[in-house]
Amino acid sequence: MSTLLLDGRAVRAALLPALADRVKALIRPPTLAIVQVGKREDSTAFIKAKIAFGEKIGVNVKHIHLPDTITQQELIAKIQECNADDSIHGIIVQLPLPIALDQDAITEAVDPCKDTDCLTSYSVKRWMEGREDALLPATTRGVKELLAHYKIDLFGKNVVVVGRSMLVGKPLAAFAMNENATVTVCHSKTADLAAETKKADVLIVAAGRPGFIGADQVKEGAIVIDVGINTIKGEKLEDEVSGRKLVGDVDFDAVQPIAGAITPVPGGVGPMTVVALFENLIDICMR
Amino acid sequence: MSTLLLDGRAVRAALLPALADRVKALIRPPTLAIVQVGKREDSTAFIKAKIAFGEKIGVNVKHIHLPDTITQQELIAKIQECNADDSIHGIIVQLPLPIALDQDAITEAVDPCKDTDCLTSYSVKRWMEGREDALLPATTRGVKELLAHYKIDLFGKNVVVVGRSMLVGKPLAAFAMNENATVTVCHSKTADLAAETKKADVLIVAAGRPGFIGADQVKEGAIVIDVGINTIKGEKLEDEVSGRKLVGDVDFDAVQPIAGAITPVPGGVGPMTVVALFENLIDICMR
Repeated sequence: MSTLLLDGRAVRAALLPALADRVKALIRPPTLAIVQVGKREDSTAFIKAKIAFGEKIGVNVKHIHLPDTITQQELIAKIQECNADDSIHGIIVQLPLPIALDQDAITEAVDPCKDTDCLTSYSVKRWMEGREDALLPATTRGVKELLAHYKIDLFGKNVVVVGRSMLVGKPLAAFAMNENATVTVCHSKTADLAAETKKADVLIVAAGRPGFIGADQVKEGAIVIDVGINTIKGEKLEDEVSGRKLVGDVDFDAVQPIAGAITPVPGGVGPMTVVALFENLIDICMR
Repeated sequence: MSTLLLDGRAVRAALLPALADRVKALIRPPTLAIVQVGKREDSTAFIKAKIAFGEKIGVNVKHIHLPDTITQQELIAKIQECNADDSIHGIIVQLPLPIALDQDAITEAVDPCKDTDCLTSYSVKRWMEGREDALLPATTRGVKELLAHYKIDLFGKNVVVVGRSMLVGKPLAAFAMNENATVTVCHSKTADLAAETKKADVLIVAAGRPGFIGADQVKEGAIVIDVGINTIKGEKLEDEVSGRKLVGDVDFDAVQPIAGAITPVPGGVGPMTVVALFENLIDICMR
């Protein structure tokens, strides 16, 4: 049995024309504001990828770059400025923020109507409920669109999510649950990880640990979605984060022969996350 | 091996003096407003139980009874009145509401600072994140307090939750996950329910289907928490809902000999839910 490669770059390319058409159908081109504090290299690289994709589909991306000496109050004031600015349709606060800032208070400052990342309370409750009109956080929507492209349905399947973060693990679990999967969430305190992951028809890994899932932890024929984006400094250049090598949470070479389908890293969920972000923005504009 | 009965009535009685002391320590006795629309018998009975418990610990319960002809706008105005009233510390909108009303818009109208049921977006995000200062929905907190009383720790355990509602299944799953359990959520679309439930060290059932879980679905020695409160009309009087017989989602007589510990219905999670509601109210008053 040959393994299907879930090729995020190819799907992104396939979805691009339709996205560009959706943008053209809007009364005016949308603008996404990305607020960055400080100059983490990986954040800068991710933002560059977003700007580049925005250009391709006719979306303006306004990169608001603030010094890491900014106070919480000043940052919230800046976000409120974006909230009030009718020429800005979506707002992203690039995470992580410097430790001194209260990430929760800052993400809550985003107007829910412009909350492209779906991190405000308003958005969280909606995606958790699984409302039809709920937007999903970009990574989750990226996985959703990737599965949809390959016609992989979660209905009645055993989905195992490794990771329980508010950014990735929890929204992915809620999504799969709302898609009628039976969902198990594992994490660092799971007693027997392999026993759990081997039961997965669909294994979604968002542990943030390079090469964490090996062949012993995967059932023959399982669909393996690797959400891990671990950057290893000083290695060869890759397209998602320049100047760093990206590796996933799954040991691709070991797992690929066993899996029924698998995402590579880079080139799997990463490119889909960028697509999903702009899908969210366009949905916001169409409301 | 004898089965431990997780006796919610006994635990409620044991916790009552401490609760009354917490109330006495407040500057003024707290007031909980319960907004009821229409006159569903089960709702009325639940409210009576809350009023009775409130009296025992020195909390005023203000039962605001509105006709089922009320419009959405009028109901929201009433809730806003409660929000603005400094003599009211907590607000509950008794669910379910008549179908004509938008339950989500109405629960969102409650001031998050008075949200005793933890159903507003503000509360949902906090309990989902598992913040230390997050209040939990009453049923979830009731289960938490019951487990704590019997010194049952979820750390590293396999917890299976049957049911995925926003009121019960999802917050219980989030709670167990945040307590470091490995959590599986099953529901009506789960392909092989018994295969899942038999893996549970702790099985929490919130399916809303009388006698749904039988002996074949439970692992020897498992802890079984039955959240089901199904009322069967015209049967003998029980103390939680007068004039109706209550049965759980678990076939108690069949499962009890297998389980390591089990909650009865009535007298298990039900009484703990009432306790938890008032714990939430007192926590709100102490902020």
